[in-house]
Amino acid sequence: MPIKTATFTNGVDLSRLGETIAAVKGAPELGSFQFRIRNRWIGCGQNRSEVLSFSAGGKEVQHNSRFLLEADEPEVLLGADKGANPVEHLLHALASCVTTSMVYHAAARGIAVEQVESTLEGDLDLRGFLDLSPNIRKGYQNIRLKLRNGGIADANWSRFAISLPVIQALLRNLGVTLDR
Amino acid sequence: MPIKTATFTNGVDLSRLGETIAAVKGAPELGSFQFRIRNRWIGCGQNRSEVLSFSAGGKEVQHNSRFLLEADEPEVLLGADKGANPVEHLLHALASCVTTSMVYHAAARGIAVEQVESTLEGDLDLRGFLDLSPNIRKGYQNIRLKLRNGGIADANWSRFAISLPVIQALLRNLGVTLDR
Repeated sequence: MPIKTATFTNGVDLSRLGETIAAVKGAPELGSFQFRIRNRWIGCGQNRSEVLSFSAGGKEVQHNSRFLLEADEPEVLLGADKGANPVEHLLHALASCVTTSMVYHAAARGIAVEQVESTLEGDLDLRGFLDLSPNIRKGYQNIRLKLRNGGIADANWSRFAISLPVIQALLRNLGVTLDR
Repeated sequence: MPIKTATFTNGVDLSRLGETIAAVKGAPELGSFQFRIRNRWIGCGQNRSEVLSFSAGGKEVQHNSRFLLEADEPEVLLGADKGANPVEHLLHALASCVTTSMVYHAAARGIAVEQVESTLEGDLDLRGFLDLSPNIRKGYQNIRLKLRNGGIADANWSRFAISLPVIQALLRNLGVTLDR
């Protein structure tokens, strides 16, 4: 019986990562995921999402605990400021995706990362949302992502920057700029 | 001295909303907002964003409390499942934006909404993220947004659906479908 040794890089279990890649290569349907949430309005600018079960390779999976995500608007946007607002959550989705993607992809290449820190800024012109001008975009006009990482050589870093699911969805529409 | 009466629809202070619209109309620079977060890697698939101060019409504004947004991957994606994952956060950003936009735009038109509930599903093929096939999108291939609302007549509802900042950013890239 072969003895399996867990090898971790960046906290990622490389033998399980290898198994996952091999499994999805062999049976592409195992790579099919569906994520779900349910959102309910509470009042004014406040609402809450519950993260639901997801499907992974055809299997239904429950999260270990119940995740509730709160949203509200700050007072200047007429809310009660009880949570980050939708466009702040969007920055978090983007940032968390960048961070996780970098860490996993670095691990797969045997690159130990010491730290990953990013700051994101998004510019928004309220005239879009308020329908005051048809030429002004309703969402962010521009997002700047400034990334600090330790342990990834300059030559490797740009390879990670293109492997980012959420950024991929936004890049072609928004002027997302990546700075180091 | 005129007496101002606060009128609320959907919890939105209509006199303040009117003042905001008038102010931004008169001085477009007041509509200029910048939102910011800082994200830090914790380990493996786990990371955390702190919502920072934002700028609103040139003024720096602090949130009333500290918002920390947690992200992790579920165990099947090699994480410890300590938070919603990045693409679940993306669904929340989208849902919360849709909800808030609907409620505010309805209020501005004097339409009382009784409830807003949405469920979102996003389909993702892991082969994209794992770089197993160059033709497979790294993010969601498709997002379905199913919206239930009370109090908005059929004739009005589609007008709200186009006023959604986050959805706007995604719509042209992703096959986001809106169902009622």
